[in-house]
Amino acid sequence: MNNPKVGIIMGSKSDLKVMSEAAEILEELNVPFEVTVVSAHRTPERMVDYAKEAQARGLQVIIAGAGGAAHLPGMVASITSLPVIGVPVKSRNSIDGWDSVLSILQMPAGVPVATVALDGAKNAGILAAQIVATADAQVAEKITQYKASLKDKVLKSAEEMEEQGWKPKEIGFNR
Amino acid sequence: MNNPKVGIIMGSKSDLKVMSEAAEILEELNVPFEVTVVSAHRTPERMVDYAKEAQARGLQVIIAGAGGAAHLPGMVASITSLPVIGVPVKSRNSIDGWDSVLSILQMPAGVPVATVALDGAKNAGILAAQIVATADAQVAEKITQYKASLKDKVLKSAEEMEEQGWKPKEIGFNR
Amino acid sequence: MNNPKVGIIMGSKSDLKVMSEAAEILEELNVPFEVTVVSAHRTPERMVDYAKEAQARGLQVIIAGAGGAAHLPGMVASITSLPVIGVPVKSRNSIDGWDSVLSILQMPAGVPVATVALDGAKNAGILAAQIVATADAQVAEKITQYKASLKDKVLKSAEEMEEQGWKPKEIGFNR
Amino acid sequence: MNNPKVGIIMGSKSDLKVMSEAAEILEELNVPFEVTVVSAHRTPERMVDYAKEAQARGLQVIIAGAGGAAHLPGMVASITSLPVIGVPVKSRNSIDGWDSVLSILQMPAGVPVATVALDGAKNAGILAAQIVATADAQVAEKITQYKASLKDKVLKSAEEMEEQGWKPKEIGFNR
Amino acid sequence: MNNPKVGIIMGSKSDLKVMSEAAEILEELNVPFEVTVVSAHRTPERMVDYAKEAQARGLQVIIAGAGGAAHLPGMVASITSLPVIGVPVKSRNSIDGWDSVLSILQMPAGVPVATVALDGAKNAGILAAQIVATADAQVAEKITQYKASLKDKVLKSAEEMEEQGWKPKEIGFNR
Amino acid sequence: MNNPKVGIIMGSKSDLKVMSEAAEILEELNVPFEVTVVSAHRTPERMVDYAKEAQARGLQVIIAGAGGAAHLPGMVASITSLPVIGVPVKSRNSIDGWDSVLSILQMPAGVPVATVALDGAKNAGILAAQIVATADAQVAEKITQYKASLKDKVLKSAEEMEEQGWKPKEIGFNR
Amino acid sequence: MNNPKVGIIMGSKSDLKVMSEAAEILEELNVPFEVTVVSAHRTPERMVDYAKEAQARGLQVIIAGAGGAAHLPGMVASITSLPVIGVPVKSRNSIDGWDSVLSILQMPAGVPVATVALDGAKNAGILAAQIVATADAQVAEKITQYKASLKDKVLKSAEEMEEQGWKPKEIGFNR
Amino acid sequence: MNNPKVGIIMGSKSDLKVMSEAAEILEELNVPFEVTVVSAHRTPERMVDYAKEAQARGLQVIIAGAGGAAHLPGMVASITSLPVIGVPVKSRNSIDGWDSVLSILQMPAGVPVATVALDGAKNAGILAAQIVATADAQVAEKITQYKASLKDKVLKSAEEMEEQGWKPKEIGFNR
Repeated sequence: MNNPKVGIIMGSKSDLKVMSEAAEILEELNVPFEVTVVSAHRTPERMVDYAKEAQARGLQVIIAGAGGAAHLPGMVASITSLPVIGVPVKSRNSIDGWDSVLSILQMPAGVPVATVALDGAKNAGILAAQIVATADAQVAEKITQYKASLKDKVLKSAEEMEEQGWKPKEIGFNR
Repeated sequence: MNNPKVGIIMGSKSDLKVMSEAAEILEELNVPFEVTVVSAHRTPERMVDYAKEAQARGLQVIIAGAGGAAHLPGMVASITSLPVIGVPVKSRNSIDGWDSVLSILQMPAGVPVATVALDGAKNAGILAAQIVATADAQVAEKITQYKASLKDKVLKSAEEMEEQGWKPKEIGFNR
Repeated sequence: MNNPKVGIIMGSKSDLKVMSEAAEILEELNVPFEVTVVSAHRTPERMVDYAKEAQARGLQVIIAGAGGAAHLPGMVASITSLPVIGVPVKSRNSIDGWDSVLSILQMPAGVPVATVALDGAKNAGILAAQIVATADAQVAEKITQYKASLKDKVLKSAEEMEEQGWKPKEIGFNR
Repeated sequence: MNNPKVGIIMGSKSDLKVMSEAAEILEELNVPFEVTVVSAHRTPERMVDYAKEAQARGLQVIIAGAGGAAHLPGMVASITSLPVIGVPVKSRNSIDGWDSVLSILQMPAGVPVATVALDGAKNAGILAAQIVATADAQVAEKITQYKASLKDKVLKSAEEMEEQGWKPKEIGFNR
Repeated sequence: MNNPKVGIIMGSKSDLKVMSEAAEILEELNVPFEVTVVSAHRTPERMVDYAKEAQARGLQVIIAGAGGAAHLPGMVASITSLPVIGVPVKSRNSIDGWDSVLSILQMPAGVPVATVALDGAKNAGILAAQIVATADAQVAEKITQYKASLKDKVLKSAEEMEEQGWKPKEIGFNR
Repeated sequence: MNNPKVGIIMGSKSDLKVMSEAAEILEELNVPFEVTVVSAHRTPERMVDYAKEAQARGLQVIIAGAGGAAHLPGMVASITSLPVIGVPVKSRNSIDGWDSVLSILQMPAGVPVATVALDGAKNAGILAAQIVATADAQVAEKITQYKASLKDKVLKSAEEMEEQGWKPKEIGFNR
Repeated sequence: MNNPKVGIIMGSKSDLKVMSEAAEILEELNVPFEVTVVSAHRTPERMVDYAKEAQARGLQVIIAGAGGAAHLPGMVASITSLPVIGVPVKSRNSIDGWDSVLSILQMPAGVPVATVALDGAKNAGILAAQIVATADAQVAEKITQYKASLKDKVLKSAEEMEEQGWKPKEIGFNR
Repeated sequence: MNNPKVGIIMGSKSDLKVMSEAAEILEELNVPFEVTVVSAHRTPERMVDYAKEAQARGLQVIIAGAGGAAHLPGMVASITSLPVIGVPVKSRNSIDGWDSVLSILQMPAGVPVATVALDGAKNAGILAAQIVATADAQVAEKITQYKASLKDKVLKSAEEMEEQGWKPKEIGFNR
């Protein structure tokens, strides 16, 4: 993909299970992006280089996912002036996700990270698209359509439930 | 201020003690903004109107602060396509801030809120400026200067401590 | 069912696995109800309409279930004057249910939500029936019978345990 | 006050600092009520008697406040068929209110307690009035007026902030 | 078993999976006991009767297990003067056990419950035996033997590990 | 005091502010006791000696209070066969008391500590008296009187509130 | 292995599943070590002896793992002057690991335990090696190589992802 | 001070109130050290340089203190091979210290940080001295003396309490 506007990075390949949702929604919203592995703790120099060069390479937003004592989003935000979106990943070594959330969210004054929900990579992708859309009418239009599709799915669910009744067995739930 | 690009809203006038830091930093970074009170729970219709008209009125980002069961940021994000930044406020009725954080951060897939630290209104202002800066070189330059000033303050602290020594009494601490 | 007195709504069809317990107990207690999907975040206008029209349509109580940053119960309560019962759902994206609980329970002064236990939809149904029963002697009688049946089940358990002994293997437990 | 419809009880006189807000709002909404001290742990027999006789004495709702391992709301709910509203009080011996909240909220299936926010006695009073209002048009009207007054206060705040500006010093904040 | 000295009660038959460990260890330590179901919330009168008669029936200690908003141990302690041991059970409806722990542990001044670890029924049994042993030399001797057996098991483990080496595959672990 | 039956120990003299409540109530209930400082972390050998000799010196129960990573109660319980009551103290270095509670409560199977509420030294004293009372009718009688006095205080509060009304200003509250 | 420099101890053989990772990495880094079972609660005397003799036996660091109310690391640290590394183990009886973490981490002033992440035995091993390396150039060299290998693995992951694309199905993930 | 062996760094001058305790105890234990300000988020390049050069400059241990989303200890540990001790500081913007603790403690496998208690800078200093002492007999001797002094203080407290009695008023407590 040429000229990516959003950079998606993650601390470990195992985070891709969560982070691929950011890529999928950006693909759907027609926003060019790139994806790679950058570890704050295992490749600190690569992280510094990535963050330093991002703006000059044409990126407008960086999405960084990490778990446990998650330092990648905050450290990237300390180096670049671009907006950085942090995805707390509930990784294998996390205490129910609390460490991931707090070590991304609670940044000191001066260095914000736009944090989304635990494992909320899809929302990170949408937020990145909303930021791109502030100066790109085509992406803005795509987002408007996407929001309309969310509404349609709920209305269809509601219709089904009102027609078919609420009893789980009637609509295919297994309890 | 004409043509605000950032809308700062809060659930109650008492949140201004925290939220004014967003306004101060936007003023410093030369980003035009507006400030008002919009309550999800006490003025739901005003909230719907504010969110619906924001984009057409020229806003590019909305910063929403609220505490306790904080629904303002998420509800505004459900209505507008603009990026919404949420500031969890540790209000008087909050359980140590946990309710404010979780009810803003943990949005469902499809409707992101860019959450900052508890009482992190200054970072919300910087993040809003970073979003505006993706298409505004003057604001981008201001942010670069701001980041440099953060570094200078730390270097000055370091120099002072190295010169004057670490003993708290020597550098004016009261314990 | 004609003339429902209780409206059961939920943010997503997937919440029905939990919320159907409210419907089941209302059916058992002979209280007419309706069930549908209303999402605060995906269909905010439908939510406003539902809440605004509820009282005029004859509803006496609304039960609203949602998970994560759960805004549905509180937003409905902000619009209607009817009592609103909130069911925190431990949905797939919830942090062990804490977000669901706190974003429903911690409503600001002026806008109560009657919150029940995590996934406590059955209790939401009973509470709705108790509210209806304050002016409906037949429902009140049903509730009294229901409470007696709870007692009978415990007494039967006690009797069994006293007769058969406490050893798990004796009464069919698998450890 | 003759013929109280709402009974307000609390585990200790020291809870009155919080619980008096329930009484105040019921007074404002013209709902007759009574207030007394009933301790689950120090006067279990009085508690049983209070709960058993409540319905026959004409009460329609009971509001019970307690802190720490708060058993009063749940125990009253186990005895009466009336709706019981629980107010978790952040008492002196409470661990930041978590014990009060969880020991009231997490009732087992069959015995609901309508839980409000920590120290949320005002909301308990409003909820009680909403329950009474399901069969009392005058109280319903009072609640509608009350909700309108909440809206008016927010609109007035908004107007003031828009006129006077957001700077805390301009509108009398002390930081 | 004649003349039980320890009464083991639980809120629901499903708690027996946990609570049977109290019975097993009391059997091993030769302390006579009884086991039954008593629910604070479903059979409040039975609970009052059980607690009132316990001392006269010859019981010296009561072990009470319950989960969620667990009121059984505290309510029994409010009625009897006997020492009451509370076992927080991580029941199906509990929020990771926190509600069970806090609603048993955080009793107000004047009404203690001797709380053991989450699902710690075995320790409840040992503690009950220790209390009985303060005036029964045979039980005291049994406990001393039991403590010695704990030590022996650890020493045997240590010996095995030192002989066989630490590598999990060598000593039969599956990872 | 000759022949103490209860030993009260604490990790630091600063814990006496909390722990003296155990001594006060034992004095009131006529149970002979002793009080001293024993630190698991600073005087491990003294702790081992204290625990080893306790039973032979005639003690029947040990009350141990400590804060933070509180090891005193559990370590004493590992050495003696006497029942040990643990008081989690919310010391200066504690994280809101959670560390004190969990490191006393969550003992492994085989070594119980009878844990009371955070800073619940008074209840530790009562529980110790209840244990002594299982074989001492005079102490049992004292406890029965004490429980009656708790009830009387609540009844008096209730009477006052019913006579004087609930308004805080009427009964001397300052809000 | 002759002349171990690091002693690895754990409260129970079942902790070996976690603790063996400390042994594996020490083996890889060529640091001689020993492994055994020492229980604070079941073999307090053995624990005292182990801690007292460690320094004289030539150990330079002790790694102690335990779960629940984990007293082993802190008690060993109270007796020896060697640096002690604590591994909080998420054992079967732990409340999501919080008890293990807090009862090891929150040691009082004067008696440090170097705490690593929940189940972080591998990091305990590396930290022990780093301590040994402060006076052993060969171990220092091994650690430098190990850190380089971590970097290489990340770079290889990054390369793969950039070549093969991010789509999980393309690189063998199962969702 | 020439040839420091321990480097004490902190993210902000305001952390000195806590961190100076590390310096004080190192001074007392005769271990040469240096103190300065290094911010991961405001001076990332200075941090990289500090960490890279530490070993060559003769440092043997680094103590790093930070609060909130505390990245300094972990990032320094990612760059240097020296042992790094992390001090979670309960800074003004921290949520009761939980963010500080988790973002330092929960490091991924491969990059340990030796974490001490919240605000536990004194213990960080002692731990650093213990590490230095593994190859420095004079420091080892100092630590042995220090541990003896801790014991003496407790024994003196115990003696005072046993002589003067436990009543707080007698020994100068104000409650």
